[in-house]
Amino acid sequence: MTDVTTARRSRSGGGAARRASRTAVSIETAKYIERNIPTFDLLNEEALQIIEENAETLLAEVGVNFVNNPAALDRWRQAGADINGERVRIPRGLARELCKTAPSTFTQYARNPERNVEIGGKSLVLAPVYGPPFVRDAQGGRRYATMEDFRKFVKLGYMSKWLHHSGGTVCEPTDIPVNKRHLDMLHAHMTLSDKPFMGSVTEASRARDSVEMCEILFGKEFVQHNTVMTSLINVNSPLTFDDVMMGSLEVYAANNQACILSPFIVGGAMAPVSVTGTLTQVLAEVLAGIAYSQLVRPGAPMIFGAFVTSIDMNSGAPTFGTPEASQILYGAGQLARRMNLPFRSGGALCGSKLPDAQAAYESANTLNAALMGGVNFMLHACGWLEGGLVSSFEKFVLDADQLGALHKMAQGVAYDDNAQAMDALRQVGPGGHFLGCDHTQANFKDAFWRTNVLDYKPFETWDEEGARDSQALASARVEKMLATYQQPALDPAIAEALAAYVANKKASMPDAFT
Amino acid sequence: MTDVTTARRSRSGGGAARRASRTAVSIETAKYIERNIPTFDLLNEEALQIIEENAETLLAEVGVNFVNNPAALDRWRQAGADINGERVRIPRGLARELCKTAPSTFTQYARNPERNVEIGGKSLVLAPVYGPPFVRDAQGGRRYATMEDFRKFVKLGYMSKWLHHSGGTVCEPTDIPVNKRHLDMLHAHMTLSDKPFMGSVTEASRARDSVEMCEILFGKEFVQHNTVMTSLINVNSPLTFDDVMMGSLEVYAANNQACILSPFIVGGAMAPVSVTGTLTQVLAEVLAGIAYSQLVRPGAPMIFGAFVTSIDMNSGAPTFGTPEASQILYGAGQLARRMNLPFRSGGALCGSKLPDAQAAYESANTLNAALMGGVNFMLHACGWLEGGLVSSFEKFVLDADQLGALHKMAQGVAYDDNAQAMDALRQVGPGGHFLGCDHTQANFKDAFWRTNVLDYKPFETWDEEGARDSQALASARVEKMLATYQQPALDPAIAEALAAYVANKKASMPDAFT
Repeated sequence: MTDVTTARRSRSGGGAARRASRTAVSIETAKYIERNIPTFDLLNEEALQIIEENAETLLAEVGVNFVNNPAALDRWRQAGADINGERVRIPRGLARELCKTAPSTFTQYARNPERNVEIGGKSLVLAPVYGPPFVRDAQGGRRYATMEDFRKFVKLGYMSKWLHHSGGTVCEPTDIPVNKRHLDMLHAHMTLSDKPFMGSVTEASRARDSVEMCEILFGKEFVQHNTVMTSLINVNSPLTFDDVMMGSLEVYAANNQACILSPFIVGGAMAPVSVTGTLTQVLAEVLAGIAYSQLVRPGAPMIFGAFVTSIDMNSGAPTFGTPEASQILYGAGQLARRMNLPFRSGGALCGSKLPDAQAAYESANTLNAALMGGVNFMLHACGWLEGGLVSSFEKFVLDADQLGALHKMAQGVAYDDNAQAMDALRQVGPGGHFLGCDHTQANFKDAFWRTNVLDYKPFETWDEEGARDSQALASARVEKMLATYQQPALDPAIAEALAAYVANKKASMPDAFT
Repeated sequence: MTDVTTARRSRSGGGAARRASRTAVSIETAKYIERNIPTFDLLNEEALQIIEENAETLLAEVGVNFVNNPAALDRWRQAGADINGERVRIPRGLARELCKTAPSTFTQYARNPERNVEIGGKSLVLAPVYGPPFVRDAQGGRRYATMEDFRKFVKLGYMSKWLHHSGGTVCEPTDIPVNKRHLDMLHAHMTLSDKPFMGSVTEASRARDSVEMCEILFGKEFVQHNTVMTSLINVNSPLTFDDVMMGSLEVYAANNQACILSPFIVGGAMAPVSVTGTLTQVLAEVLAGIAYSQLVRPGAPMIFGAFVTSIDMNSGAPTFGTPEASQILYGAGQLARRMNLPFRSGGALCGSKLPDAQAAYESANTLNAALMGGVNFMLHACGWLEGGLVSSFEKFVLDADQLGALHKMAQGVAYDDNAQAMDALRQVGPGGHFLGCDHTQANFKDAFWRTNVLDYKPFETWDEEGARDSQALASARVEKMLATYQQPALDPAIAEALAAYVANKKASMPDAFT
């Protein structure tokens, strides 16, 4: 583990370490967002009731498939569902009733207790991009992701003030065998960051490995009584729950670990082309999936997920940051709140191939909708590019900077005496200016959100410095952050035990690349 | 008038004209937006009442200055205000009472009646960038704007489906004498487009010229009874109404032409650093300004404007697309609705020097806030760059494309039987796909908003076509639009009369360049 070794050496003292400490970028992490603003409730009561009614009809009359999973069928049968082959028809109201044991909020613990996050209620927890097989940066272009890329993204996430969560598969480390990647990925999250993270879901055995690694990191007792992972369980939409995803969900639920139950829908392909029809399907899938988790273990923490893209009906390409995607996000948020469940949606989603204007329009549209739509857990909050095929280094820091604006927006507007500023208004009067007045002097430091990467310079300065665009400014910031990264401390005994676990597990299996 | 001549020749027939007609880009213009969605009400009742109370205190105790304008002081004195030098102190409640004669909605007529717009209520009218002395495009970089640039922007605006309004000073034609530019600008709007437009406000005499040109275009009788211009009157914040702006406002109000009464505020410099303090000042300024318009002519159509930027307290640069700017927009919208007045704010505002990711994040943040915050008239809806110093050709078409998404978002979510899509959900069932189902076939054409400029292509195709970023794609679209532009028809007698008016006016004055 090169990174661990390097960090230990630098922590052990000496002039180099002191210099590093003096020049270190602050690794302050903001507290998760607590909304002090209303949600935007797009759908009216009538529409919501129709969707809820139709979702129940769908579950009762059409049903859902639990594939290759006789145990799941047994659980459903015992709960009162009608089983026909792999089809599970759920009597009206049963799924919603079962969902009631899922908590409305839960704490996900981090190894650094200052990084613990509350998920649900008025909170918004931000986690980075998940899943891309490619990475891109300005220097190297688009290429298959490696474990070294993965580690860089974890480091960037650790150093990003507005990111509360280290995430999961920040990119697919394609240079590591498929059956062993999860070990290296979890090891990176556990050692290179101290923020909360996600577990593996690509096989039930890997979910078990994730739990076991957490037992090393947090202690076995702690893990059995506390949630230390939030993992992503996609529904195979429409209405299908496959055995791989359900196998992982079963492991996590049984161990009281949180899952996001997320329909994964390219609108028009995996759901109807209408917003209301799509919301009906999303709700039916979430009802069935979360109900199932509660059959495995009542009280298991779950998140109502909705990952829905629109589609370009000409090319079939999924599209992002579109009005229909926002409408579905708003509606799904309302449906989740009516179930008192934490809600996952949104992200800096985009279809663009580059971190350009298209990427930013699309991402900003979704980030704004996610804040206003009451999202509690936002995966893909930074770094997502090209429809999720690419993790972009530059976009990671550009998006992460915008997340700061969400924090400020969520604070709402103060209107105490100081905020009213009547003294300033009286002091300055017509034709004056406020730059030097007492109120400004007392308040300017926190008055305005400030970017860490965008350009606010005078034109001439900007021009002399090379007329850099956002991508170039972001490249420089990525480089600076990686150069000044310092690994958070970890008990050496735990570090050794984790390394040994990974080494042993890897040695116990042949490499598999598919 | 080169453009007119060229267009006439091409309309006169021949193979070239027929080919042009076959290849012409559609110049369909969408109807102004009618919101079928709620507004986002950020401030609570208590905060709003405090701001309203404080604004009255400000007007009564501190007052506002009407500079170099004895007639205005007389009007205020007769209305019951306390006058001391140029300071006007307005008794509590008087300004609000006077504002009540301003209409809550009005129609601005266009020479093509299909382009008439309703301003106020649930409508949202979109107009392009206003005011920049520079232009930028990918080929030529940043340079002083000329009348030829101005005409290009008017043409692009005319051809932009989602733009309802031709705007005003889409860029400053710096190659034309200052005292004559308004004539060429108005002439361009009147002849190169058939959408509604704005009048000149840089001197009372130029406002009168604007009215006279409208009398030629619409007929004298029509102009006296109908609103055919909406013009931009900035307040010299804090709390100062200068004679140039008020001179223009007086001309327009007396002629029943609409004005936007807009505090123009760089937060922290021209207003307190707090959102609540800034809103208090904005409200006081709007109350005083619109009240004054109603002293000139009760019933004159007016818009509650709020142009407020945040500021980078390090450099003093105004900043855009920030959370504070959005908070002020939301609050100002609530204050405007409580006065039953149309509301102007927002735009594709940004500080970036290039149409890059920064420009798009900042612009999208503001466009979203403007839609949700209940803006009725959005100036700068496309083309704004570098804090308003630059009109960008590429950003014009990129922003204008995003405006389409606002239209779709504003429609809200249908939930009739077709939108519920229960037949589709039953037909497809678990594990199927919706691409070929009856509901999709019947609905896909209008199901999803579609871009006209962004990239949704497969990676390989995009790469083979040159891996173009948004700016490059937008350049190509600008070129295509300008190449296929066709001038809207205009009665030749009116066209001649307008040209003669401009020529005579210009001949009557020496050139002035300051």
